[in-house]
Amino acid sequence: MDLSMLPDGGMRWLDASGPESMIVLSTRVRLARNLSGVRFSTRTTATDRKDILESVARACHKSGQLADAVEFDVPSMSSLDRNILHERHLISRELMGRDGRPVSSAALFTEGELGVMVNEEDHLRIQVLKSGFDLSGALASIERLDNDFGRELSFAFHPQFGYLTSCPTNVGTGLRASVLIHLPGLVLTKEISKVLQGLAQVGLTFRGLYGEGSEVVGNFFQLSNQTTLGKSEGELVDQLGKVVRQVVEYEVEARAVLERDAPVVMADKVWRAYGLLRYARNLSFEEAMNLLSGVRLGVGLGTIKDVDAYTLNKLLVYTQPGHLEDIIGLGVDEAELNEARAEYVRSLLQPGLDDGGDQTEKSSES
Amino acid sequence: MDLSMLPDGGMRWLDASGPESMIVLSTRVRLARNLSGVRFSTRTTATDRKDILESVARACHKSGQLADAVEFDVPSMSSLDRNILHERHLISRELMGRDGRPVSSAALFTEGELGVMVNEEDHLRIQVLKSGFDLSGALASIERLDNDFGRELSFAFHPQFGYLTSCPTNVGTGLRASVLIHLPGLVLTKEISKVLQGLAQVGLTFRGLYGEGSEVVGNFFQLSNQTTLGKSEGELVDQLGKVVRQVVEYEVEARAVLERDAPVVMADKVWRAYGLLRYARNLSFEEAMNLLSGVRLGVGLGTIKDVDAYTLNKLLVYTQPGHLEDIIGLGVDEAELNEARAEYVRSLLQPGLDDGGDQTEKSSES
Repeated sequence: MDLSMLPDGGMRWLDASGPESMIVLSTRVRLARNLSGVRFSTRTTATDRKDILESVARACHKSGQLADAVEFDVPSMSSLDRNILHERHLISRELMGRDGRPVSSAALFTEGELGVMVNEEDHLRIQVLKSGFDLSGALASIERLDNDFGRELSFAFHPQFGYLTSCPTNVGTGLRASVLIHLPGLVLTKEISKVLQGLAQVGLTFRGLYGEGSEVVGNFFQLSNQTTLGKSEGELVDQLGKVVRQVVEYEVEARAVLERDAPVVMADKVWRAYGLLRYARNLSFEEAMNLLSGVRLGVGLGTIKDVDAYTLNKLLVYTQPGHLEDIIGLGVDEAELNEARAEYVRSLLQPGLDDGGDQTEKSSES
Repeated sequence: MDLSMLPDGGMRWLDASGPESMIVLSTRVRLARNLSGVRFSTRTTATDRKDILESVARACHKSGQLADAVEFDVPSMSSLDRNILHERHLISRELMGRDGRPVSSAALFTEGELGVMVNEEDHLRIQVLKSGFDLSGALASIERLDNDFGRELSFAFHPQFGYLTSCPTNVGTGLRASVLIHLPGLVLTKEISKVLQGLAQVGLTFRGLYGEGSEVVGNFFQLSNQTTLGKSEGELVDQLGKVVRQVVEYEVEARAVLERDAPVVMADKVWRAYGLLRYARNLSFEEAMNLLSGVRLGVGLGTIKDVDAYTLNKLLVYTQPGHLEDIIGLGVDEAELNEARAEYVRSLLQPGLDDGGDQTEKSSES
C-alpha cells in the first residue's frame, strides 16, 4: 500500500490555514454509526464485516464527497504503514488491532479532510479533521457526509436513545468533537490544573496527543466532549466551542502575563529550545515535543520569526517513530531513531530561516 | 585609569599562537622577589612601600624589556578596573587587597607578556604569560627579566635557602610555573581524579581558573608546581613540563576513545553547547564556562569548524562579571549580568561563522 496515494498525506490541517491555528492546531469531529440488523463489531463474523465493508464502499462511491476516496485495506498493510496512518490520526489504535492484528475487512476511506473507518469499534467511524479552531465548519462537513451515508445505509437508531453504538458511552449522537490545543502559557503559569478541573465540571475531558490514555507531551492537549447522550450534535459542539474559546483566551492572557513579568526568561526559554533543535544530534520524542512546544510559543509571541506554523506542524507529525522509520528503514534501535529525529529536525530548520543571531542588539556592546 | 592603554589588553595569549593552544591555553611563570634590607610586605610601612615602588620603577625603566611598561597605581584605580585586571590574570587577589582596599603603593608594571606586581605578598612578583604550552619560552623570558632586575636591585638571598620570601612556601627559587589546561576528555571518561591524584605524588598541584581556592569550572585546570625549594628553576619547570606533556597525551587519548565509542553522544554534546551559546538569552558564568568547554572540545575534535581559538579564549575572559560590568555599567544585578553575558556571547558567535546547520547530511533523508 503506497501512502503517497494521499495527495496531502491526509493532513491538510498541517497548512495552519484555519482560525487561531497557532494555538488550536486542529479540530476533529467524528460520528459513530452502526448498520441496523447487523451485530456490533465485538460479535461480527468475517462475513458480517465483509458485508459491512461492501455496503460502506458502495455508499462512499455514491457520496459526492468520498467518490474519489483512497481505500486502505488495513489487514493487508505493513505494520509500519498502519503506524504511519495512526500517527497522522487517520486510523485509530482500535482499527490497527490492539494486538497488532487487525480484524478482517478493517478499512479506511479517506479524501481530503474526511475519513471513514470501517469495522472499528463501531461499523463506521466517520471523521473530519480541519485546520485550526473550526468546530462549526467541521460539524457542517460531517453532517453533510452523515446525510449522504444515511441515504444509502440504514443506521441502528432508537427513537428514544438515538444512534446505537457498541460502547454505551457513544450512544445518542455518537459524536465526539475535539480540538488539539497548545497551552504552554497555562502550564508555565501553573494555571493549567485549574483549567483542566473546570473541563470535567462541564462534561468535557482532556487527553494527550494520541487519544485516550496517552500522556500529555509538549503541552499539547486534546479537549473533547465526554458525553454524547441527551444533547443534540449542535449543542455538544456549541458547548465545546464556548469552553475552547474561553481556554484560548486564558492561554493568551497567560502568555501576556509571562511576557510582561518575565520577558527575558521567556525569550531565553524559547530561543534555547530553538538552539537545541537546530543543533542537537540526538533527540528523544518527548524532548523534541517539548522543544517544539517552546519554539511554537516563541513564534506565537513573535519572538521567533521566520519559522512558520506549517513547519512546526510538520515536525510534530514527522518526528514520530513510524514516520522516522519510514525515512531510515525498519529495525533501527532507539539511539538511531533519536539520531534520525535530530537530523530530520535540523533539515527543516534551515540556517536560511534563522534570524536569531542577527537579532542581537549591538547597541550595548563595547 | 584607562585600561585601553594596554594595546592587547595585556592578553597576548588570547591569540592562541602557542604550541598545543587548543588544550593548553596559557603558560605562566612567576618569580617572588624581595629587596634585601627591607621588611617583608606584612610589615612594611607606607614609606617602605613607596621606596620599594620607586626602586622597582627605576629598574623597569632601565630594563630593555619593561622600558615602555604601562604602570597601574592600584589604590587609585576603581574597583571595577582592579577587577578587570584580576580577571585578566594580570594582578592577584592579594594586590587588590583582600578586603577590597589595596595597600598604598601597590602597583603593576606590564608590557606585552611581562608583568611586575609591586608590594604584593612579596615586594616583587615578576611574571610572564605565554600562549599555549611554552614553559621553556616562559622560563627564558622570566630569567632575562630577573637578570635585568638583579643588576638594578639587591634581592634578599640566602646562600643555603635561596631567595627569601614572605611566605615560606615560596622560599628557594621563588618560582611558580603553571599551565591553564582544558581537560574535558578526562572529565568525561572519569579518569580525571586518577590524573589529579598522580599530580600530588610528584609535587604538583591543581587549581581552578582563578588560582588558589577557586573552583574548577568548565573543565579548566591550572596545574602548577607545589614546592620551590631544593630544586633549580630549570628542574622545577622540566618536571612540570614532563607531567603536563603526559596529561596532554592522556587527554588526547581520552578524546579519541570518546570519539570512537560514542561519536553521536559527543557530537550531540558539543553541538548542543554551541546551540545554547548561540541562542540563550540568559547565561550564568558557570553555565557559560561549561558550554564554552563543550564548544572548545568540539573545535578540538574538528566537529565544530569556523569557531577559532581566539574567539573561545576571548569569550572565556570577557564573559566574566567585571568585563561585563565594563560593557553594561555598574550596579546591575545578577539577572542583568546573565543577560549581558548571553548577549555578548551571541555577538561573538555570529551566524556568518556558523556552518552547523549546513553540515546536516542529506543522504539519509526521504
